[in-house]
Amino acid sequence: MWPDRRILDLLDIELPIIQAPMAGSVGSEMVIAVSEAGGLGSLPCAMLSVDQARNELGIIRQRTSRSINVNFFCHRPPAANPARDAAWKTRLHGYYAELGLDPEAPGGGANRAPFDDAMCDVVVDVKPEVVSFHFGMPERRLVARVKAYGAKVLSSATSVDEARWLEDQGCDAVIAQGYEAGGHQGMFLTDDVAGQVGTMALVPQIVDAVKVPVIASGGIADARGIVAAFALGAAAAQIGTAYLLCPEAKTTATHRAALKTAKDNASVLTNVFTGRPARGIVNRIIREVGPMSEIAPEFPLAATAVAPLRANAEANGSGEFSPLWTGQAGALARELPAGELTTRLAADALARLHARHSPA
Amino acid sequence: MWPDRRILDLLDIELPIIQAPMAGSVGSEMVIAVSEAGGLGSLPCAMLSVDQARNELGIIRQRTSRSINVNFFCHRPPAANPARDAAWKTRLHGYYAELGLDPEAPGGGANRAPFDDAMCDVVVDVKPEVVSFHFGMPERRLVARVKAYGAKVLSSATSVDEARWLEDQGCDAVIAQGYEAGGHQGMFLTDDVAGQVGTMALVPQIVDAVKVPVIASGGIADARGIVAAFALGAAAAQIGTAYLLCPEAKTTATHRAALKTAKDNASVLTNVFTGRPARGIVNRIIREVGPMSEIAPEFPLAATAVAPLRANAEANGSGEFSPLWTGQAGALARELPAGELTTRLAADALARLHARHSPA
Repeated sequence: MWPDRRILDLLDIELPIIQAPMAGSVGSEMVIAVSEAGGLGSLPCAMLSVDQARNELGIIRQRTSRSINVNFFCHRPPAANPARDAAWKTRLHGYYAELGLDPEAPGGGANRAPFDDAMCDVVVDVKPEVVSFHFGMPERRLVARVKAYGAKVLSSATSVDEARWLEDQGCDAVIAQGYEAGGHQGMFLTDDVAGQVGTMALVPQIVDAVKVPVIASGGIADARGIVAAFALGAAAAQIGTAYLLCPEAKTTATHRAALKTAKDNASVLTNVFTGRPARGIVNRIIREVGPMSEIAPEFPLAATAVAPLRANAEANGSGEFSPLWTGQAGALARELPAGELTTRLAADALARLHARHSPA
Repeated sequence: MWPDRRILDLLDIELPIIQAPMAGSVGSEMVIAVSEAGGLGSLPCAMLSVDQARNELGIIRQRTSRSINVNFFCHRPPAANPARDAAWKTRLHGYYAELGLDPEAPGGGANRAPFDDAMCDVVVDVKPEVVSFHFGMPERRLVARVKAYGAKVLSSATSVDEARWLEDQGCDAVIAQGYEAGGHQGMFLTDDVAGQVGTMALVPQIVDAVKVPVIASGGIADARGIVAAFALGAAAAQIGTAYLLCPEAKTTATHRAALKTAKDNASVLTNVFTGRPARGIVNRIIREVGPMSEIAPEFPLAATAVAPLRANAEANGSGEFSPLWTGQAGALARELPAGELTTRLAADALARLHARHSPA
C-alpha cells in the first residue's frame, strides 16, 4: 500500500502522518483523535508544567492504546540578561503606552522550559512510544533513560549537518523541517535564518546523508504534499498547520481567523515573539519590530515583554501582537475534525499514489 | 507514460524537463543539447546584444529543429541615480583599495536589458516555439507580436498573486519558482524576500489558483524532485543548477569549484550583485555587504561597481566577489553532458513513477 513502511514499522502506526506538536495549540484531545485514526498524535509539552504534562498523558492513555508522541524543547536555558530585557521592553514601550498598559507590571509568556529530569520522570512513567525533541537533543543521560524503556526518539533537522548530528546522537528517525514550516524552526547548529533550506531541496539531501528514515515537514498540508514527500525519499510526513483548524485544536479565535485568510506569502520567519526564528503571519509587531530583531532577548525571554501586548490586543479581537504561527501551505488546509482529517489525508494520498499513471 | 501531458503537448517536447535559462552560463551549445534530447533548451538573452542573440539563435536553428525557449528579462529600466551609485561605490571602496583597483575606472557588468522592440524583431524573425520572461511580462504590444506567430509564452511566479497576474496577461503556462531556486527570483509584485515561498508550498497553491499548466522550479536537481513536482500538480519541472556543471555550460572555473562543495544551506538570497534578490553561495561580499543591502542601486545597476572587484578576484582564483548562483539542491547535481543529463533525469523519473508501489 504505502511505498515505504519504515516509519510505520518503527513507530507502530498505520498511516504515515505525524501530527506536528504545536505548543499552545495542541492538547490531549487532538493527540487522541490523530492516534486513534492511525496517525501519530503528538503532545507538545514545552509550555506545560510537569503536573500538566502528567495529567494530559493520563487522559491520553485512558482513551487510546495506540502509539503517541510526546514532544519537548531542549534549548539551553538562557542566562539572565536584565540589560537586554530592559532594551527590549524599551523598544516595545510605545505599544504599552498606546494600549494603556503599565510597562512595569510583570510580563509572562516565556514559559517554555527545556526537557529535564522531572519531565523525564513523567516520560519514563508513562512510556510514550515516541519521544521527539526540538532544537537539537537533550543531555545524553536523559536520552538514554528514554531509550532504555524502548521509546523511539525523533528530532528536527533544518540542514544536512543537523541531520547527521541527530543521527549521531541516536535519533531513530530524523524530521527534515523545511523553511516553509510554521512555528519554530528546529535549527540548532546555526542561528542564520537566511540559509534555511526549503523542503523540496532539504528532504532528498537529508535522505542521502543519513541511514535512519526521514520524515518530511514544512509546506505539507494536503495529500499532494504527502505524495511529494514520499517521492523525495521521506517515509512519512509531519503536518502542522492543517491541524490548527481542527475543532480539537486550542487555536485562538484570532489565530483561526488569520489562518483562514492568509495567503501563501503572508508569513515570515520572526524572532520577535520568543527570541528564536519561528514562522508566523505578518502582523503589526513583526512589521514594525521584526521580522528578525537584533535586540530580542534570548529564547524564550523575548515573550515576556510581548505577552501583555498580546493579551490586551487579543481581548480586543486583534492579532497584531500575537504569534499567528503558520506554515506556507496553510491555505491548503481543510477544516475537519482531527481524526477525519488524518484518515482523509491518508486515503487521498494513497489514491494518488495508486493513480500515478493516469492523466491528471 | 508521464502522468500529465499538458506541458509536453503545449510546448511540443518529449520530456517534461525545461533547462532553466541562466544568463551568463548558458549559450547555444546547451540549448541544442537539451532540446535534441527531448527537453526544452532555453537560451537566456538578458545579457546578450541583439546581434549576439540573433547569432546564437541562428546556430541553434541550424542544429536542431526541436522546440526551443528564448528567455528575456522584462524589468523596468532603472532611472539614473548618481547619488545612489556613488553611495554604493563608497560602500565598496575598501575592497577597491585592498585589491589595488582604481575606484574611478569605469565599471561594467550591468548589461541586463529588458525585452524591447529590437529583441522582439529577432524573436519574430526566428520564431522560437517558446518565449519566456522573468520579472513579470513586457508590454502587451510586445507579447501580442510574439503570440501572433504562435509562440507559447511563459513567465515565473513566486506567489499565487503573481501566478494569477501572469495568467491574466496571457501566459500559456506559469513557472512556479520557489524560494529554493538559484539566481534571480522572478518576483515582481513585491520586493520583500522574507515572504518568498518554498516550492513544496508554492506549487500546489498556484496549481489551485490558475487554469494554465504549472511548471515547478526551485530545489529540483534530480529525478526525485521531478516526481515530487508531478505529485504537487505540476506538469513539468524547470531545472537550473544541475545544468551548471555540464561541459556545455559557460560556468566559470571558480563557480564550478564552489558548486561542487556547496552544502544545502550554503546559499542565500542577496541583492549585492545586481540590485535584485538572487540566490548565490555565501562569499565575502555577501557576508560583509549583504545579503540584502538597502543601499544597493536598482537592478541591474548594482553590478557596475562590483564588476571590477569580481574580475580582479576571479583572475586570482577567488570567487569572493562573484555571483556564485545556485539553487538549494545543487549538491544533488550529477556532472554529465546536458543531453545525457536530460535523458537520465527523465528515465530515472519515469522509473520512479512506475515503481511507486514497491518498497523503497
